[in-house]
Amino acid sequence: MGFDVGAIRVVACDIFGTTVDWRTGVARQVAAIAAERGVALEGGAFADDWRERYLPSMQRVSGGEREWVYLDTLHRESLDELLELRGVADAFDEGARRRLVRAWHRLPAWEDSVDGLAGLRERYVVAALSNGGFALLTNLVKGAGLPFDCILSAELARTYKPEPEAYLTAVRLLDVDPAEVLMVAAHKWDIDGAREAGLATAFLERPLEKGPSVTADRADDVESDLVVRGFGELAVLLEAGPRT
Amino acid sequence: MGFDVGAIRVVACDIFGTTVDWRTGVARQVAAIAAERGVALEGGAFADDWRERYLPSMQRVSGGEREWVYLDTLHRESLDELLELRGVADAFDEGARRRLVRAWHRLPAWEDSVDGLAGLRERYVVAALSNGGFALLTNLVKGAGLPFDCILSAELARTYKPEPEAYLTAVRLLDVDPAEVLMVAAHKWDIDGAREAGLATAFLERPLEKGPSVTADRADDVESDLVVRGFGELAVLLEAGPRT
Repeated sequence: MGFDVGAIRVVACDIFGTTVDWRTGVARQVAAIAAERGVALEGGAFADDWRERYLPSMQRVSGGEREWVYLDTLHRESLDELLELRGVADAFDEGARRRLVRAWHRLPAWEDSVDGLAGLRERYVVAALSNGGFALLTNLVKGAGLPFDCILSAELARTYKPEPEAYLTAVRLLDVDPAEVLMVAAHKWDIDGAREAGLATAFLERPLEKGPSVTADRADDVESDLVVRGFGELAVLLEAGPRT
Repeated sequence: MGFDVGAIRVVACDIFGTTVDWRTGVARQVAAIAAERGVALEGGAFADDWRERYLPSMQRVSGGEREWVYLDTLHRESLDELLELRGVADAFDEGARRRLVRAWHRLPAWEDSVDGLAGLRERYVVAALSNGGFALLTNLVKGAGLPFDCILSAELARTYKPEPEAYLTAVRLLDVDPAEVLMVAAHKWDIDGAREAGLATAFLERPLEKGPSVTADRADDVESDLVVRGFGELAVLLEAGPRT
């Protein structure tokens, strides 16, 4: 079954890495908060290590090893571990740690995101669909000025992508069929999860997502209906418009 | 305890009657669809009768008399009854009835809503919080160009306002305290429900909400923290800004 652009009614967008540049945003805030406390931390490397703990920490929830918890809680646990590992735990009190966790609530959009989403929004319902909690996403989307029609979060299913329920809860809330939703993501695991849940998929390449020392997912390794290099390109590709 | 504008972080807005003019929108669509079918229906009166069945139909759900169902389903049941009562049931087939139910998905904003919400949004998280389903609200908000930061629906609690869970689910998703949320509504029952759930309240008078022959709720009969005549006035009143 080929991809039918005419069937798409909703464009659901992953956020971290796909729509916003988490690494630049987190690195900058980590470096600033560390500097205030007289600690030298390389923000980029710290952000990389922090993000590396993201998937395994979620998998413990998705796999049923532990109850559902907010992404903020997972971020906090990884942060505590990391500060310990770096031998700087004493320099970061409760207040500083809370501010660090909230760094993930304020991240810059990739250059093409705002205009590209605005273009898509002319023809489609454009939704955020992330593992970030609803409050986190609301703050993040507002801060970055991202023009979504609505915010959806895996929190609403009390699980995490790539579990099918994370996608299917969003599909049900929007009262559409899975095949009417195009999931846009920069990560193979997310594209795979969406496809398995019956959604159409667009892989959005973000070669710089993980900085200079970590290779981001590449289109060659991903099976998706579309491949694009930004939201602007996606808006052009989808100009055939929705079925109406 | 007096009202403290400095405590407010979220402005939650009721939709039907408060933000959009359901009566004008529904009346126009009912009249148009009836005319197509060669039936003379006075759209305004029909809209009034339809809306009159709204609270009782929801109360059967909130009171536990029946399982939670979509607002669309309640609208459809009331519609079927009404068409029967008017003796015009035969003129409206399945397709026409579906279109009539979807009239509630496409309604015009009151004149002050778009600019007033935009003003509020500069200082607060501004959310839709309605008994309309998530999909209905997404369509409605998009169609009317209402600049909300996020859409929340009583559907997320699988109940209806004025049940406390409808408000408190929204509060929890936004990760704030009830007293940090200002509920804006044109209906006494909604203001009462929000207050009982611990939210701050703003009664927004819409004297024309129910048309010329039905009296809308009036400020004198409502106990609320604020009384305003539109979203523009509310934005001015709240200019003291949020606690930051």
